[in-house]
Amino acid sequence: MTYAVGFLLDEGLVFASDSRTNAGVDQVSIARKMTVFEKSGDRFMALLGSGNLAITQAVVRLVNEDLDTGGPGDIFAAPTMFAAARMIGAVLRNVYEVDGDALKEQGIEFNAAFIFGGQIDKREARLYQIYSAGNFIEASPETPYLQIGETKYGKPIIDRTITHESSIAQAIKCAILSFDSTMRSNISVGPPIDILTYVRDSLKAGLRVRLPEGDEYLTGIREYWSNALRGAFEHMPDPDWLK
Amino acid sequence: MTYAVGFLLDEGLVFASDSRTNAGVDQVSIARKMTVFEKSGDRFMALLGSGNLAITQAVVRLVNEDLDTGGPGDIFAAPTMFAAARMIGAVLRNVYEVDGDALKEQGIEFNAAFIFGGQIDKREARLYQIYSAGNFIEASPETPYLQIGETKYGKPIIDRTITHESSIAQAIKCAILSFDSTMRSNISVGPPIDILTYVRDSLKAGLRVRLPEGDEYLTGIREYWSNALRGAFEHMPDPDWLK
Repeated sequence: MTYAVGFLLDEGLVFASDSRTNAGVDQVSIARKMTVFEKSGDRFMALLGSGNLAITQAVVRLVNEDLDTGGPGDIFAAPTMFAAARMIGAVLRNVYEVDGDALKEQGIEFNAAFIFGGQIDKREARLYQIYSAGNFIEASPETPYLQIGETKYGKPIIDRTITHESSIAQAIKCAILSFDSTMRSNISVGPPIDILTYVRDSLKAGLRVRLPEGDEYLTGIREYWSNALRGAFEHMPDPDWLK
Repeated sequence: MTYAVGFLLDEGLVFASDSRTNAGVDQVSIARKMTVFEKSGDRFMALLGSGNLAITQAVVRLVNEDLDTGGPGDIFAAPTMFAAARMIGAVLRNVYEVDGDALKEQGIEFNAAFIFGGQIDKREARLYQIYSAGNFIEASPETPYLQIGETKYGKPIIDRTITHESSIAQAIKCAILSFDSTMRSNISVGPPIDILTYVRDSLKAGLRVRLPEGDEYLTGIREYWSNALRGAFEHMPDPDWLK
């Protein structure tokens, strides 16, 4: 399992993903699930994958090859982020055409999802969630974040704290809390956590941080948040019918 | 969708369930999903259902009939809670035998789960989660709560605040927070929320409360908790690499 989240903010974009991958509980390892495609001064794009690692890695590999050869996944040639998202979707459909039947025969679901965001030149920054079928939805000021993978445990904290007007720093901290809630409840999501920021109109990657297992800040925040929640819980008023 | 949770505490048992039922978004109504079976002074039992309402209502109906006729679901004749849970499982399997094929033909999953807890005479209080197949697991001091239905949104808050040593009052308040998180994220879970308590060795139902939509305490707690979380979030320390 994976958990990944992307935020579309007035200030820019924030991406976060975990790095745990597992095929059953006896084969757990670390895989980077975040890829940056960048042509500094022209465009910045980030792609986060969840689902079957063979599928998501094939997509990333094919896109990289197409960048070199000018193939159908050459997102550096896309005129808009929408066109680039369609290219990623088309590459994913290509993987399905090649591997889909064989996977079905083995009883394995064709399960893959991506968060894809970035900005091209002076156009709007965009953030998309791409489904297994290669189609996609877009984030907006009303829905300023998108999640893939194990999304539910970490959703309530985002709903309560983040709007499109939140700062990049706030979104980073919220993402860390969202991961903390998820990691507590689902052992197949785990550190290192990759964090990536993009400042609107900068056309290059901003901060790139990897928080490993036992990271001091991660551990500190876990304790801070647990204490804050327990404190708030202890002071929660009783209902009349309980007095 | 439904959400229901049961707590096994040193003090006793706490149950909570929502009352929203839907078949698609255009058929939403209210159904009580919590049933009490009580023989005051001898035994107290509560059954909370989630999943296909026709299945869970059939189980409750059949158990009620068997109480009158001494049939296989006569849980008033069960010598132990374990035996009673097996009876409920057997009734559920009976529903599957009768309805399972027809449901399959209509492409409908046989989807039902129950939380079942209580106490018989001077025996231990027990809490079980019964699966669609009629088998079940039991809560313990290490795992003092069980959830059915839309469980993930409301799990982190329970994990952070409740142990088997928590009071009944604490578990009630935690259950309300857990429902609040769930209702914010999944529109198919909604009030009224039914709450039921059982004080260990009392052999009769304790508090029974129904919190309707717009309930003053529910609304107040929603605001209190949102403010507390936002406050804690605002004071969350920055990582060094963000300064």
